[in-house]
Amino acid sequence: MNREEVFNFSAGPSMLPTPVLERAGSEITNYAGSGMSVMEMSHRSREFMDIFSDTKAKLKAALNVPDTHEILFLQGGASMQFSMIPLNFTAEGDGADYAVTGNFARIAAAEAAKYCAVNTAASSEESGFDRVPGQGELKLDPAAKYFYYCANNTIFGTAWNYVPETGNVPLVCDMSSEILSRPIDVGRYGLIFAGAQKNMAPAGLTVVILDKSLAGHERPITPLMLSYQRMIDKDSMYNTPPCYNIYMLGLVLDWLSGQGGVAGMERIKHAKAKLLYDYLDESRLFRPCARPDSRSDMNVTFRTGDDALDAEFVKFASARGLVNVKGHRLAGGMRASIYNAMPAEGVEKLVATMKDFEVGHRV
Amino acid sequence: MNREEVFNFSAGPSMLPTPVLERAGSEITNYAGSGMSVMEMSHRSREFMDIFSDTKAKLKAALNVPDTHEILFLQGGASMQFSMIPLNFTAEGDGADYAVTGNFARIAAAEAAKYCAVNTAASSEESGFDRVPGQGELKLDPAAKYFYYCANNTIFGTAWNYVPETGNVPLVCDMSSEILSRPIDVGRYGLIFAGAQKNMAPAGLTVVILDKSLAGHERPITPLMLSYQRMIDKDSMYNTPPCYNIYMLGLVLDWLSGQGGVAGMERIKHAKAKLLYDYLDESRLFRPCARPDSRSDMNVTFRTGDDALDAEFVKFASARGLVNVKGHRLAGGMRASIYNAMPAEGVEKLVATMKDFEVGHRV
Repeated sequence: MNREEVFNFSAGPSMLPTPVLERAGSEITNYAGSGMSVMEMSHRSREFMDIFSDTKAKLKAALNVPDTHEILFLQGGASMQFSMIPLNFTAEGDGADYAVTGNFARIAAAEAAKYCAVNTAASSEESGFDRVPGQGELKLDPAAKYFYYCANNTIFGTAWNYVPETGNVPLVCDMSSEILSRPIDVGRYGLIFAGAQKNMAPAGLTVVILDKSLAGHERPITPLMLSYQRMIDKDSMYNTPPCYNIYMLGLVLDWLSGQGGVAGMERIKHAKAKLLYDYLDESRLFRPCARPDSRSDMNVTFRTGDDALDAEFVKFASARGLVNVKGHRLAGGMRASIYNAMPAEGVEKLVATMKDFEVGHRV
Repeated sequence: MNREEVFNFSAGPSMLPTPVLERAGSEITNYAGSGMSVMEMSHRSREFMDIFSDTKAKLKAALNVPDTHEILFLQGGASMQFSMIPLNFTAEGDGADYAVTGNFARIAAAEAAKYCAVNTAASSEESGFDRVPGQGELKLDPAAKYFYYCANNTIFGTAWNYVPETGNVPLVCDMSSEILSRPIDVGRYGLIFAGAQKNMAPAGLTVVILDKSLAGHERPITPLMLSYQRMIDKDSMYNTPPCYNIYMLGLVLDWLSGQGGVAGMERIKHAKAKLLYDYLDESRLFRPCARPDSRSDMNVTFRTGDDALDAEFVKFASARGLVNVKGHRLAGGMRASIYNAMPAEGVEKLVATMKDFEVGHRV
């Protein structure tokens, strides 16, 4: 198929803007007259250091990161942060609050329990992770070293549509599936992290933004590469960083800027999601999975209620170039991940396809 | 400058074969009619799973990896292995042998000392890491859980030109700077690891090849992502792997196959290095740094003995398109890294340039 015919609804890795890929392709054998690909550059070379610092500056500007916070470009994915956070932020005997609103928050809490006392501040596991608890439901421990939550639950299609209020306890937030999709007040967070493969860059890069005053207390058993303080001291270059991914992030940030930045993206993403949710709310065949007050703009989950029919729809959509619409095995049904790079046209085509399918399968 | 005019002697990230970059560029917006870039593919999609298993099969074939051993595609660089090895292979009170023949072996030993008793089985630190100790010099602990060494010391330009004999103690080897440059008897090793950014792929991928029988004994404090057994069980996909780097490795392996595989590469690399060493042995201006019996074919280190003259040469070479010839700050002087992708022409041009420089600076 041609690129124009395919809309990729994958939850991650996921779509990148076509102009970004075209630009990367145009300079893949020779970047800016250097005679080299960015993939070949020494990470200590002037050429790459310029790419690195430009990308960092662009991200700082895009998210309006205050000087109290440092941006790190790491490896290992969000799952590595599940360990790195308690290893750096807790000592023996300390506790931390975890809000368990999805699969990855649950894994993060289980991982933290290796190192500290985990207080489950809230959980929506009982109702199949179909919602995010409200502020009033949070059972906060004022002595917790941090409060951990996952802003957008990719698998279940729910999102925190508010920032929890936790007093003096620092917020630690997994923003993998929503970073760069809306403005955030970075100063309110102790640490934000995100795997790049949804809204930022190809898989292999993890962005961490942390309050520098929280670093420097890692446990003695912390592996060399998992000390935030070391990475701050070395500006993410204790060893070779994932250079090409950082370069790609820079290109994505240029593209984002042309879309009106994160403020522009917030309007676009909400309009895209509304198109789908409005249809889902009136459809007689498809039902949305997430409760209305907890809906994610990034991952829209839905089902017919009949597994065989769900599978038939996934095939039907795929034949029209709408690929990776199948839901995660833990949730079943369908999931349309509509990250920044998904054009409105892709969502319109998905809704049209759902309507056509519904006509053929009137219930 | 045009790509043809530049030869990049960087120690890593380093040159990739031009046909590999051209092929990657040609399919960067649409891989094999999928309508997607490899960078955008779900790691669980059929398209990417095919790339993944093909790449793994090609690497298994290229290195003749026996079925007793598993190939893992990880993140974090070689430095992450410095922690992962003792966390998985030692228990409280165990010991391990380390041969300290360079900067990275030294860091690996210091990292292991966090977790177990480190026996320095050999060290060449006293003579500035200019050599690799012989078998007779190794002080082996028969109770060690493993014997660790770095096959090629990138910074100092030395290599182990033999495989140490350690009885029943498994060999653990950092092959970052020489993997795929010659045939190896994988079955003799407990674990081999290598950062990809020298002979394999862009930075961000770490290849680990380990004897499966050694896995499954990680300590309870081992971070989620640092368990070899978990990564074996999940075929390197506990979470999203660095997909694009794996794809690039596949392209590099195709190219390698066209060069006669690792056996062909061994002949080529030796001829390239000989060209440089032969000249260095007769030059009246430049002197090789590594002792003759410990010379690396991958990283050739040399100096004039005068720091200002060294700097002048680096500039002279750079003006002719021979870039990144400057030595590592710990070693000084010059270093020519001549990995698999460096054409013989680049080495010939370097030797010619050194001769020209020597004529202008007769001592």
